[in-house]
Amino acid sequence: MSGSTFGKIFKITTWGESHGAGIGVVIDGCPAGLLLDESDIQKFLDRRKPGSSQYATQRKEADCVEILSGVFEGRTTGTPISMIVHNTSHRTSDYREIASYYRPGHADFTFDQKYGFRDYRGGGRSSGRETIGRVAAGAVASKLLSELGITVTAYTQAIGDITISMDNFDIEEARTNQTGMPDKEASKRAEAYLKECMEKLDSAGGVVTCQVNNMPAGIGEPVFDKLDANLAKAIMSIGAVKAFEIGDGTKAASAYGSSNNDSFRQTGETVSKATNHAGGILGGISDGSEIILRAYFKPTPSIFQKQETVNKNGENISIQIKGRHDPVIVPRAVVVVEAMTAITILDMLLQNMTSRIDKIKMFYNEKNI
Amino acid sequence: MSGSTFGKIFKITTWGESHGAGIGVVIDGCPAGLLLDESDIQKFLDRRKPGSSQYATQRKEADCVEILSGVFEGRTTGTPISMIVHNTSHRTSDYREIASYYRPGHADFTFDQKYGFRDYRGGGRSSGRETIGRVAAGAVASKLLSELGITVTAYTQAIGDITISMDNFDIEEARTNQTGMPDKEASKRAEAYLKECMEKLDSAGGVVTCQVNNMPAGIGEPVFDKLDANLAKAIMSIGAVKAFEIGDGTKAASAYGSSNNDSFRQTGETVSKATNHAGGILGGISDGSEIILRAYFKPTPSIFQKQETVNKNGENISIQIKGRHDPVIVPRAVVVVEAMTAITILDMLLQNMTSRIDKIKMFYNEKNI
Amino acid sequence: MSGSTFGKIFKITTWGESHGAGIGVVIDGCPAGLLLDESDIQKFLDRRKPGSSQYATQRKEADCVEILSGVFEGRTTGTPISMIVHNTSHRTSDYREIASYYRPGHADFTFDQKYGFRDYRGGGRSSGRETIGRVAAGAVASKLLSELGITVTAYTQAIGDITISMDNFDIEEARTNQTGMPDKEASKRAEAYLKECMEKLDSAGGVVTCQVNNMPAGIGEPVFDKLDANLAKAIMSIGAVKAFEIGDGTKAASAYGSSNNDSFRQTGETVSKATNHAGGILGGISDGSEIILRAYFKPTPSIFQKQETVNKNGENISIQIKGRHDPVIVPRAVVVVEAMTAITILDMLLQNMTSRIDKIKMFYNEKNI
Amino acid sequence: MSGSTFGKIFKITTWGESHGAGIGVVIDGCPAGLLLDESDIQKFLDRRKPGSSQYATQRKEADCVEILSGVFEGRTTGTPISMIVHNTSHRTSDYREIASYYRPGHADFTFDQKYGFRDYRGGGRSSGRETIGRVAAGAVASKLLSELGITVTAYTQAIGDITISMDNFDIEEARTNQTGMPDKEASKRAEAYLKECMEKLDSAGGVVTCQVNNMPAGIGEPVFDKLDANLAKAIMSIGAVKAFEIGDGTKAASAYGSSNNDSFRQTGETVSKATNHAGGILGGISDGSEIILRAYFKPTPSIFQKQETVNKNGENISIQIKGRHDPVIVPRAVVVVEAMTAITILDMLLQNMTSRIDKIKMFYNEKNI
Repeated sequence: MSGSTFGKIFKITTWGESHGAGIGVVIDGCPAGLLLDESDIQKFLDRRKPGSSQYATQRKEADCVEILSGVFEGRTTGTPISMIVHNTSHRTSDYREIASYYRPGHADFTFDQKYGFRDYRGGGRSSGRETIGRVAAGAVASKLLSELGITVTAYTQAIGDITISMDNFDIEEARTNQTGMPDKEASKRAEAYLKECMEKLDSAGGVVTCQVNNMPAGIGEPVFDKLDANLAKAIMSIGAVKAFEIGDGTKAASAYGSSNNDSFRQTGETVSKATNHAGGILGGISDGSEIILRAYFKPTPSIFQKQETVNKNGENISIQIKGRHDPVIVPRAVVVVEAMTAITILDMLLQNMTSRIDKIKMFYNEKNI
Repeated sequence: MSGSTFGKIFKITTWGESHGAGIGVVIDGCPAGLLLDESDIQKFLDRRKPGSSQYATQRKEADCVEILSGVFEGRTTGTPISMIVHNTSHRTSDYREIASYYRPGHADFTFDQKYGFRDYRGGGRSSGRETIGRVAAGAVASKLLSELGITVTAYTQAIGDITISMDNFDIEEARTNQTGMPDKEASKRAEAYLKECMEKLDSAGGVVTCQVNNMPAGIGEPVFDKLDANLAKAIMSIGAVKAFEIGDGTKAASAYGSSNNDSFRQTGETVSKATNHAGGILGGISDGSEIILRAYFKPTPSIFQKQETVNKNGENISIQIKGRHDPVIVPRAVVVVEAMTAITILDMLLQNMTSRIDKIKMFYNEKNI
Repeated sequence: MSGSTFGKIFKITTWGESHGAGIGVVIDGCPAGLLLDESDIQKFLDRRKPGSSQYATQRKEADCVEILSGVFEGRTTGTPISMIVHNTSHRTSDYREIASYYRPGHADFTFDQKYGFRDYRGGGRSSGRETIGRVAAGAVASKLLSELGITVTAYTQAIGDITISMDNFDIEEARTNQTGMPDKEASKRAEAYLKECMEKLDSAGGVVTCQVNNMPAGIGEPVFDKLDANLAKAIMSIGAVKAFEIGDGTKAASAYGSSNNDSFRQTGETVSKATNHAGGILGGISDGSEIILRAYFKPTPSIFQKQETVNKNGENISIQIKGRHDPVIVPRAVVVVEAMTAITILDMLLQNMTSRIDKIKMFYNEKNI
Repeated sequence: MSGSTFGKIFKITTWGESHGAGIGVVIDGCPAGLLLDESDIQKFLDRRKPGSSQYATQRKEADCVEILSGVFEGRTTGTPISMIVHNTSHRTSDYREIASYYRPGHADFTFDQKYGFRDYRGGGRSSGRETIGRVAAGAVASKLLSELGITVTAYTQAIGDITISMDNFDIEEARTNQTGMPDKEASKRAEAYLKECMEKLDSAGGVVTCQVNNMPAGIGEPVFDKLDANLAKAIMSIGAVKAFEIGDGTKAASAYGSSNNDSFRQTGETVSKATNHAGGILGGISDGSEIILRAYFKPTPSIFQKQETVNKNGENISIQIKGRHDPVIVPRAVVVVEAMTAITILDMLLQNMTSRIDKIKMFYNEKNI
């Protein structure tokens, strides 16, 4: 069944395989009037581009985006925005070998089980390149959110067992170093850890944190389309993510109610919370505090050590994967988490617009809207 | 916008508030021919019923289900199955006070922000009673899954910082004790922990684990409707869940690829995995191994200690919540996690039926199907 | 697969069979703050109630609605509105006979083909009673539309070959006579026609017209969710409707462009159309003119003449249907057409609220909304 | 809101404007294993191509399709199939004038009302070129249906007041002449009619009939996703369609029940109907007879006569449209009706696969499927 569409109002549909003609996305439901050109998208894509770091695959991928529809005279028209990134690195030959067996930790086996066969070139549809469509759509969502004053910011919180300290927090650092960590000191230690991984022909996982600032209260739709439920789906749909949490997350399970509850505080006209264990969401609806979520990524499954697996002839074999693979995908995944968060937040903001009859009447009856 | 519907093929819509006329669910898309009567539903509802444990609210709620449509001569007809549980405990007076302020950790503030006002009686739509509809639908999904040989089993893994040992695992124990823990010894320690919580007028959280056995490979729809992504949404949509994980979950982030990858093994005609760090899902598609997921619940926000908050007049006030509240919701939430898992698994099994042209041809052309 | 849900934002799910416990609907996505009580619903249901006319079935059905959720202190809360009409006329014995064969023009055969068996009592889910849920939801939609100044009005345009004259148009007449025709003279002729039908043990069809007044321009979502496309689906989903048209409809196919085009005219600040062949919709989007649509109903398939059919033993047999059946359903269907139109119009009005970034910014940033 | 997606399982999303970079479609949910290459698509696109008839626009449009994803080694993979037709005729200058006013019968005014501005080049998104995406997707659906033995065939039934005679029916004729009429004699009269239209600087409408042969019984989902309801939406979403009917359609409204009912007949193991007034659908579910539907198209709104309208300065003006426009779109619309019918029929066939528990059990438990 169709599973390549996400969102209800700001709805995205991605398509494309690692070694097909290209990767793309169609955004349906983007409001009209947003200033948009390819540079808005490109700067997001550049953040996930391989080859920029020694801890990322050394494949050369230009990943230049082209907007094919939905923009006229520099503004979105309200009609579908179709975007494409042509694939340029098509060395199918590299992948002939992996056609015959199932790589551990990859989707080779499960795609074969589901569809009867698979596009084995570079993982086909299950390749990390699929996230190009998400990031392109996320760039549009982020730009639209910024028009509403809302910002979405993701960064690497941990690689392996190296975790940042919030005392050193510096988001500029995260945007320039090779780990995506907003902590110069931790980033250096993470680099050492990754070098060690590479020497051992091994790979590492990590954690990406994402925060949403200036989020209005009241966003999220009870009871199944809670804001945190939709964010969970958005983030868990990213390949390699094995856990999701909001606010204090797993730690909340061993806390006491007295320490986990956030008190409300009135200051002038504004209600705020004294603490934010909840991560900005209560009952599935944003409470006006900063939203904080975390995505836990497993280590890259493509490692160069010898591994045991089976081939399509039903034989138990030993394999040794070749090629160019990221020893850790976390730094490149930061922008993917940011993109999926932005898409979800925007969609839920739009969904909220019909929650109250008084606002609908104002929308349709008043001169000033 | 509408947010009370879950699923694409086996689609459920819940309705009802804590102190309205009742709580219900409509299942649309249940296949025809399933033997079903109210006792199938009731035994699931009885597992979430309050009053059966000293660590659950002492409110008396009979929670008797009535099937209103979709079943004829003992079998489902393929048309919508509507089920209702009438509310019997309507003491609105208990809740007059909480109408005037925002309880910390509850959805009072966010519902007011979203809708302009709220049904304040017992939490209204954000009450835990809303899960009655989920559990009723989950009972139907579970029965249908059992026809396919698939079983879904949830249990309490931790309460506060007390965690079960898999060495003591005994699911019968979990179904009879007051914690839902499949470990008699851990359960006793958890009871002591909960008594302490109650004495301190405090509350506890915990972890529910759910496993799916005999799951066929190939289930899950790339790339957004991955099996784990949809399970994440299903589970995170349960009130009080703050984190979700699959397989090794958060631990995978600090593992190495070499230890996290599961080798494939061929035995006769069968491909299996030597380990199951993945929790039964690769690339968003089931791999034939047991599916394992975990839900992390925050402590019950209703505690009897004094708390700081604001009222509707914009004043900072101190409150002390009265009434009958669970010191921990985890034991009663076990069946809710099981229900949401069953609903999701069934929906994805049905979604998978159109994945291959050869099977569709066999379905429509062959005499034997 | 699930097919009992209609709408994207104002989303309705109906359930229930002719002779089950009751018929109901859940409205999910109704904005908060609408004044609503059961009398708002009942007056719509009373318009479809049988027994009020000699040309409708003489079955007694009280059809009293109960609101089960989603309304608190007289206003909608934004949460699902569940409504039920209990069935009171359960004489299953009347229907034992029809269990064994397939009535011509009915869904007996097709339900058996689809589901393997059927609830044969009174047509089960395919009974006209299913429209109770639609009418109840339509009452809510109509009330909300009236808050925006929009009115939806349906009436009988033709019964058999008797058609109203617009010169005699009197909507009050339509609401009080037995045909639903807004033309006293035509109504009398239609009554004579129906008497003749009944004497011949035969039945009649007819046409219902529906108009929407004060409709804002700009409503409808290109390219598949065009306003006319969604109206077509809404109306064609009513049992017995065999054709749908908008504006000049079928007549447009034999017209010339020069006569079919509607000129635009500017009067002060207002753009209007000199004529309205289009029926208020251009390119799938409302143009600010009155919306006009028509539904063509086939004759009631339950006739008392002898008919040829097959039974479940695979024998060709003659049957003679007994019981109480409408010789024409058109008068009672008027309110059903009105309801489905109102539901669709409202849903599309809500869908339109996110079409422009400037309006979204005003919605979220301005103090006055 | 998003409105460019159609279908639930075989789900298509179209994008593109008349004078943008191209027109495309993403098919999500196409089963794996279908043999498919560009020639399968191209032969459908060639049927809607302009320039092949003197009654169609003389614009040169190559309309060559490229498959960008979802096909590997000649077969569909189950992942999204993205297709693009690049636009080659970009003479924006032709359209500068129409930017300033609203053409009667077109969507210029309504797009401006909805979105605040519009891509005015050649109608932008509301151009007939949008149907390229539908036809490309329809080609895939038709090929898949033919694997199941089901054929979908559309033809011109009428142009203006010239209607075919079924006595002359010859579908080969329809595929080679300039009107799409399967009646050589009627086609000649229609040509004469069209010449007259062109001489008068006027345009014509017409009727397209579509039939589905070898349709299995049991397809269609009560109560809102009835087969006829979904077909109605599919067809009415095509630009310029003003009416839709199934079977006897509008004529059924003035028939008697005794003449409109179709008797069932048993012949050996087979149940069939003696007549087919119903057009192959009873209670929204296919009955095994041929499905027959009709689409009524209004005359092309672009005529070369002088017309009255308003411009963006709010002035009443006279205009005379220039350029290349079809005097009738019906012959080119035949394949569009066929495509939308095929897409809908296929989607409903896939939706039906989960209707019965016995078939689901066979699907998952049996070796042979």
